[in-house]
Amino acid sequence: MARSTARRRIVRVRIAVDGSRTVSRREDVLAAEEPLEIRIDGSSWAVTMRTPGDDFDLVAGFLVGEGVIVSPDQLRTLRYCAGRDEEGAQTYNVIDAQLGPGAVPPSEAAARHSTTTSACGICGTESIDAVAKVARLPIGQVAPLIDADVVAALPDALRDAQPVFDATGGVHAAGLFTAGGDLVCVREDVGRHNAVDKVIGWALREGRLPLADLVLQVSGRASFELVQKARLAGIPMLTAVGAPSTLAAQLADDSGVTLVGFSRGGSFAVHTHAERVRGL
Amino acid sequence: MARSTARRRIVRVRIAVDGSRTVSRREDVLAAEEPLEIRIDGSSWAVTMRTPGDDFDLVAGFLVGEGVIVSPDQLRTLRYCAGRDEEGAQTYNVIDAQLGPGAVPPSEAAARHSTTTSACGICGTESIDAVAKVARLPIGQVAPLIDADVVAALPDALRDAQPVFDATGGVHAAGLFTAGGDLVCVREDVGRHNAVDKVIGWALREGRLPLADLVLQVSGRASFELVQKARLAGIPMLTAVGAPSTLAAQLADDSGVTLVGFSRGGSFAVHTHAERVRGL
Repeated sequence: MARSTARRRIVRVRIAVDGSRTVSRREDVLAAEEPLEIRIDGSSWAVTMRTPGDDFDLVAGFLVGEGVIVSPDQLRTLRYCAGRDEEGAQTYNVIDAQLGPGAVPPSEAAARHSTTTSACGICGTESIDAVAKVARLPIGQVAPLIDADVVAALPDALRDAQPVFDATGGVHAAGLFTAGGDLVCVREDVGRHNAVDKVIGWALREGRLPLADLVLQVSGRASFELVQKARLAGIPMLTAVGAPSTLAAQLADDSGVTLVGFSRGGSFAVHTHAERVRGL
Repeated sequence: MARSTARRRIVRVRIAVDGSRTVSRREDVLAAEEPLEIRIDGSSWAVTMRTPGDDFDLVAGFLVGEGVIVSPDQLRTLRYCAGRDEEGAQTYNVIDAQLGPGAVPPSEAAARHSTTTSACGICGTESIDAVAKVARLPIGQVAPLIDADVVAALPDALRDAQPVFDATGGVHAAGLFTAGGDLVCVREDVGRHNAVDKVIGWALREGRLPLADLVLQVSGRASFELVQKARLAGIPMLTAVGAPSTLAAQLADDSGVTLVGFSRGGSFAVHTHAERVRGL
């Protein structure tokens, strides 16, 4: 699991039933997330965010899922391209697939897919730069200052505002909250990213960007792309019920976003910029 | 919530601690999933799978997340295009965004994104046809025949085979199992789709496609795209810990895939093709 996980320092907060608070600083292990550029016969075709490991399986399966190949002989070779990071080390983040006879090369039209990222030339650049978009809105310096009790209460407050989840038991949600814990906007969707897009789109249409004083609570995990969406909307704090990835934490750290993960049952982990949570 | 949920008939199975089985047939409510084509100034730009509802917010937020707009005046209008289904009814699945001054139109390079689907002309076609890929492998007629006890045991068996989850508490997994419940291949990833691509890619490279006699167990929800990946690999049965979407159930039904959802704690719901589960 060399590259599939990484360690980062976190601040762990637990709120007991009597309201007392335990704060501990320790290392946590995060699942790795890095972009993988897939080339077909030398041409860039797709970029997907993935956990490194079994990359050849990933590319082969992706090609099956796109209807390109159905048998091993239709995939002549898989190899890592000579992608280098800034220190000249091989990134193992670019793979070229040479198709064999019987493969159905993706048409130009079908080249529009994979992730919401749009990077196409990861070779030679540091990975996070390659997939990061240019933020046009600032992240607030410190605000909001938020109590740990409020942070711990947000997941239940979000859950209580989910009509489609009540009916189905199976949709994601994103909610914008004030630093006092008041719900400003909630949206649901089968897709985690869509729920976030919906609350940010609501805010844009209301003329409220950048969302400098609100907190974004999400029902799932915190991926790189969710941090990026928060950052592009100027949201200073993203808190997730699930786990953050390595790249999510790195981007949050670099861009001044407070990232909270595993927020459930009265406890949570602050991965970056803990200065926005009072008393830590 | 008119279009955000839909009802479907399911077979609900519960295995008690003593091994006794309760089977009931009833209606269940599923979260809706439909493709949304986003056009910018009249040109097709992206297709995303989403739960209908708050579509204008979704498009606006998606544009913020792509760095295209940061203020309401940069978005001149949002309107539904005249997409029609086969019966001539408005689909509400195509939106055109007219950009205003100050917007940064996505470059041609940045048009490669959104989902793993590649549909670009949803107007005028029935939505599921528009995003469905052509399957080149058959789905087996009946096999595998699998016991309900085995189905109920798969989530724990998958969880027990997840080293990265053990370390991080936060990655998805996909596992291929025999009808007897034996694990054949497991892969983990921060992305649900990637984990599925990895097991299917493994199978392709081993020369095992179509996977006519295996069951695919996934750790998360069952979306349209996961059913499509199973179908393209010839996998006759997909079982998920989480909820299926409407479009996932519809595609599974149409393509002969047995779809199981909410498989946890000894109970599960068979949404389609229950004939592969013994004794239902």
